[in-house]
Amino acid sequence: MKTIQDYIRTIPDFPHKGIMFRDVTTLFGDPRGFRIAINQLLHPYAGQPIDKVVGLEARGFILGGAIAHQLSVGFVPIRKKGKLPGTTIEQSYTLEYGEAIVEVHDDALQPGEKILLVDDLLATGGTAEAGIKLIERMGAEVVGCAFIIDLPDLGGRAKLEKLGMDVHALCQFEGD
Amino acid sequence: MKTIQDYIRTIPDFPHKGIMFRDVTTLFGDPRGFRIAINQLLHPYAGQPIDKVVGLEARGFILGGAIAHQLSVGFVPIRKKGKLPGTTIEQSYTLEYGEAIVEVHDDALQPGEKILLVDDLLATGGTAEAGIKLIERMGAEVVGCAFIIDLPDLGGRAKLEKLGMDVHALCQFEGD
Repeated sequence: MKTIQDYIRTIPDFPHKGIMFRDVTTLFGDPRGFRIAINQLLHPYAGQPIDKVVGLEARGFILGGAIAHQLSVGFVPIRKKGKLPGTTIEQSYTLEYGEAIVEVHDDALQPGEKILLVDDLLATGGTAEAGIKLIERMGAEVVGCAFIIDLPDLGGRAKLEKLGMDVHALCQFEGD
Repeated sequence: MKTIQDYIRTIPDFPHKGIMFRDVTTLFGDPRGFRIAINQLLHPYAGQPIDKVVGLEARGFILGGAIAHQLSVGFVPIRKKGKLPGTTIEQSYTLEYGEAIVEVHDDALQPGEKILLVDDLLATGGTAEAGIKLIERMGAEVVGCAFIIDLPDLGGRAKLEKLGMDVHALCQFEGD
């Protein structure tokens, strides 16, 4: 029986030399792989109230759409700057070289709402941390951060746990 | 009882002056709206074999993830050039000014597979047509093209129907 990890393809030197890119499209494209991934992402939250699912652009949209539908709740996208048409709040975060900005519609979450944040990959945790800040600035509460892959050597899990987050990942790749 | 159209927000002058942007994030963010949208997108295909759902970047990922999960099939992304890590086939299409390229992993679909193509909006149909060409170049068959919104004045539906496509949209906005 194939594990989640078995469905993930590794592509060397993408997007640039020295990076081992963990490609989840082979997981998403497989009916059994995709079904198991969505189910396993939700296991820890069974019975917990969740008001909305927030997904990080772009692979987090695929997972977040499926999870929001499964839970019968709304889905809210966090996007790179300039993509959302309404008024937004934005949050910058640090990249290897320079910085990036993500944003969310300023009326997309209500104070007190319980949010599940999802993305495919937890690496340095920079994007996820920016997402958490956006959610919390709107007065909502992150009840969990769910990922397919954790790259523990890059420190993202430690960073999010330091913020008091509950981090859930389906598999790890070490040495990245 | 609110219709699909009632959940969609219109934002004038985005992304540039004169465009009435139909914003589906208010539909996606509402639990009842999102649930109804996914259900209605699937109604015409009940009982039809569908092997994979293909979604167009980026809002098509939200819908496509939910629909693939609902059908318990795999999801395949069509992305803007340069985002997919594996070997791809690409297809260019014409924009108002210039052209753009979308691509898909060259091993993501198999000959004979039956594909449901999804996106949020059918405008001129340029991206959808490029997606159809990619799917057909891989020997797979598009059994339906499903959208939340059709802007009939922009000619996308006519363009896709001329290709022999079955086009399904949940609502229309005229005068765009």
